[in-house]
Amino acid sequence: MRTTIRDIAEKTNLSITTVSLVLNNKPNKIAEKTKEKIFKVAEELNYIPNQVARAMVRNEINIIGLILPDIRNTFFADMAKGVENEARKYNYRTMLCDTDNDNEKIYQYLEMLYQNGVKDVIVGASDEGTVNQKLFQMIDNFNMNAVFIDQFFEERGVSCISVDNKNGGYLAAEHLAKLGHKKIGCIAGDKCAKDSSERLEGFKSGLQDYGIMLDEDMILHGNYTLESGVECAEKLAKKDISAIFAFNDMMALGTMEVAKKYGISIPDDISLMGFDDILFSRFFPVPLTTISQPILEMSKEAVKVLIDGAGDTKYQAKHVLFQPEIVIRESTKEIV
Amino acid sequence: MRTTIRDIAEKTNLSITTVSLVLNNKPNKIAEKTKEKIFKVAEELNYIPNQVARAMVRNEINIIGLILPDIRNTFFADMAKGVENEARKYNYRTMLCDTDNDNEKIYQYLEMLYQNGVKDVIVGASDEGTVNQKLFQMIDNFNMNAVFIDQFFEERGVSCISVDNKNGGYLAAEHLAKLGHKKIGCIAGDKCAKDSSERLEGFKSGLQDYGIMLDEDMILHGNYTLESGVECAEKLAKKDISAIFAFNDMMALGTMEVAKKYGISIPDDISLMGFDDILFSRFFPVPLTTISQPILEMSKEAVKVLIDGAGDTKYQAKHVLFQPEIVIRESTKEIV
Repeated sequence: MRTTIRDIAEKTNLSITTVSLVLNNKPNKIAEKTKEKIFKVAEELNYIPNQVARAMVRNEINIIGLILPDIRNTFFADMAKGVENEARKYNYRTMLCDTDNDNEKIYQYLEMLYQNGVKDVIVGASDEGTVNQKLFQMIDNFNMNAVFIDQFFEERGVSCISVDNKNGGYLAAEHLAKLGHKKIGCIAGDKCAKDSSERLEGFKSGLQDYGIMLDEDMILHGNYTLESGVECAEKLAKKDISAIFAFNDMMALGTMEVAKKYGISIPDDISLMGFDDILFSRFFPVPLTTISQPILEMSKEAVKVLIDGAGDTKYQAKHVLFQPEIVIRESTKEIV
Repeated sequence: MRTTIRDIAEKTNLSITTVSLVLNNKPNKIAEKTKEKIFKVAEELNYIPNQVARAMVRNEINIIGLILPDIRNTFFADMAKGVENEARKYNYRTMLCDTDNDNEKIYQYLEMLYQNGVKDVIVGASDEGTVNQKLFQMIDNFNMNAVFIDQFFEERGVSCISVDNKNGGYLAAEHLAKLGHKKIGCIAGDKCAKDSSERLEGFKSGLQDYGIMLDEDMILHGNYTLESGVECAEKLAKKDISAIFAFNDMMALGTMEVAKKYGISIPDDISLMGFDDILFSRFFPVPLTTISQPILEMSKEAVKVLIDGAGDTKYQAKHVLFQPEIVIRESTKEIV
């Protein structure tokens, strides 16, 4: 039979009210010593205030820490939805850790999750060379299971769920080349971001297959925010190009804003492509041609890999690669 | 000095490896009886695997359960961001509970949060008459502290952070009336949704002040999703009206889609207004005139009210009312 508050009251010779106040953490003026006595007996009698208290002591807490840069970017909202829904099926809860695009916060969150006994994390944050060194070290020190979404670190021996960025870049190049575009600008991600360099590599190689060289001056670097898309597009607006490939939809949206400002018509003057296919990109002022990532499926897979791996004696890092698809809408057009 | 695994090994006469395997929940073939012995001694010696294990036993876990209908709706993503950021300042964590617009899941989440020792919840879910009865009962039974965002239940004695929906409706009416619109359609929320009926009341009263009667046939009811906006707009497209007031931006976006399909120009043929001012509404095909809710501020306030209230002996329900503002963009125009 389960230990009740009555049992603890009997054993400690205290009133049920006193024990109840302490164990239910109600406001009280009970002496620290008495409280300690109650807690001690409660523990001896294996009193369980709730399921997790027990699970926690035994390190069985079922929480996934989900670290992402900005929940208001619908790409990450989709990620959160996928993780949360799938985790629930396995009786795991999801703790939301929004870093506000601030890399320092990733470390703070890891520290916090560790202190909270959370051993399973999914990292959907953007990656910079300098961050990763420390990130991997912390994950290692804290003995955490980590799965990275939308990133792939071959050399690290960690599980990654990623999209074939190179192929995504290739598909974009192929589409623009077939439409006759030769002078093309790029709004890439951060120079250190692996996904960005992969997309760029695929894009260059695709153009090459069609005999087109990408001018290095036409490659600008943003950081996947709308604002950085605006900044880069301002610079590209002055160049002699007929198409722009933005490495995510938010930066493509920023580009549309700049085009509107200068009276540049999309797609008549400039063809524009994005990457991600977020919920809103079909509703952009000009419905966006983009490279679609199956983010819901990727997020679900991340949870599966994480939970499968959690019990392994010999942890085997897994890499699951999803294929992107091109979604053609109204923002790209044959050159005349 | 803090108890170490070494101390427990000594006391139990077991090896450090054995104790470590058990307490760190590593895969092992150690007998149940031995495990129990280790756990018992660990508890006696007050061994703390992590801060929360201790906090949990003492019912001090600092987690806020955030229940919302759909994180992909950027309105709720903003809410999540506001709650998470503010909670972190108070050393609280946020557990994300996405109900997928399924009211049954609200109950499941409450049950789960209770079993996990979470006593503080913020509910940003949509409200239907039938749901609330059970919802309030559960919150009561579980002895939870709850704060509702964007909803106000005067009669329930629970804390609510809401926007002045009546005034929001009034502002919309005033704007359209001043532009000369007399034949107006409404895409309201669910008939049972309190925020919707308040917006409608304010809207009617605003029109009345300008001598305009709102025809009951022109009031359609959606459920705040884009799809329901499309459905309602399809019906309104056949009616003789010059303006539509959609009760949120997602339904306004659905209305734009329908207008585009039928070649109806916004704002030349129909003026369109929304409610919420989500991140994307300024980037809609026609930048949307809408009633703005200060959702980040409201979410922060919800956290403050929740945490302030948590320690109160006499819990005083608070109601904080924020004022909405009209944001005029390009989707509304003077009638000619």
